[in-house]
Amino acid sequence: MTELKPWRTLSSRITYEDQWLRLRADRCETSDGKVIDPFHIIDASDWVNVAALTDDGNVVLIREYRHGAEAITLGLPGGVCDREDDSPIVSAARELEEETGYTCRSFVPTGRAHANWADHSNEIHFFLGFGAELNGQTNLDENEEIEVELCPWPEFLEYDFSGPKHTHHAAALFFAERYFKRHPDRTPK
Amino acid sequence: MTELKPWRTLSSRITYEDQWLRLRADRCETSDGKVIDPFHIIDASDWVNVAALTDDGNVVLIREYRHGAEAITLGLPGGVCDREDDSPIVSAARELEEETGYTCRSFVPTGRAHANWADHSNEIHFFLGFGAELNGQTNLDENEEIEVELCPWPEFLEYDFSGPKHTHHAAALFFAERYFKRHPDRTPK
Repeated sequence: MTELKPWRTLSSRITYEDQWLRLRADRCETSDGKVIDPFHIIDASDWVNVAALTDDGNVVLIREYRHGAEAITLGLPGGVCDREDDSPIVSAARELEEETGYTCRSFVPTGRAHANWADHSNEIHFFLGFGAELNGQTNLDENEEIEVELCPWPEFLEYDFSGPKHTHHAAALFFAERYFKRHPDRTPK
Repeated sequence: MTELKPWRTLSSRITYEDQWLRLRADRCETSDGKVIDPFHIIDASDWVNVAALTDDGNVVLIREYRHGAEAITLGLPGGVCDREDDSPIVSAARELEEETGYTCRSFVPTGRAHANWADHSNEIHFFLGFGAELNGQTNLDENEEIEVELCPWPEFLEYDFSGPKHTHHAAALFFAERYFKRHPDRTPK
């Protein structure tokens, strides 16, 4: 049995907030009475990430400029769970369609994990989409400029192309592979 | 060939900085001349993550309270690449020893990926360690309280215990699995 005890949050204040970033500073007390102040938390809504597969075994990827990497990137669609979304699966379907124009016959959750339990409050919900088809309506955010690209699933699963990689997408591939190990009949040919 | 063009950073200012968090706000211009200001970046040093394996096939895990998740968590050791570290592999060995007291006979890099290319400037360097042994010296940060735990590698690879999961650790498992597919002789029995 662990001896570890959670910290107590004595107080909490929002130190920055705009449309894009919400920063929280907590005053915390450890189990042996030490006070830590400020402890910064990126106070974010949950995120979703979608690997949408077409029936002929391609995954739907997006190419876009990402300013964190300061590079044109290639990766999986995803985004924020909006307050209006009833559940993460709804967010996943919405983000996929908004960013790519693709819709799916079905989605399955493959895993769920904290974005960064050191300093983020939120979790990422990972999904596989099946039967992806280009029959929806894109709806890009103001600053989004996106090119959609199909890639054979086994090739993307290698995650070995030149250019930037994303930790969240490696995690998505881990959860997808684990799902396919448990459901080999659904593995893209 | 992609039509996408990177943004230009017109100016950049540090909006917050202390020991734990450095926040940058950029004034950016898209390729069609639109100005985005502020674009927030978590301006962080690179991070490392280590899956250290003992010769009898266990992975070295740490249990600790993480305030992002507000929970006692179980996961892989890791941390920040210090300015004094000559390379990420040095950081990986140092963080492993400081957090767990374990040292390794050898380390191999398994992958490298942006922490979050949307809004983080840094990358995570993933390592496997071989021949892990408890013969080093722990050196915990002021606020760290850690319990070390061994877990059979195949069990951790399932990543299916109850309790919080970490996106970075799912990514670490993806990169480790990919390494072992390419080097089956090194797979823990």
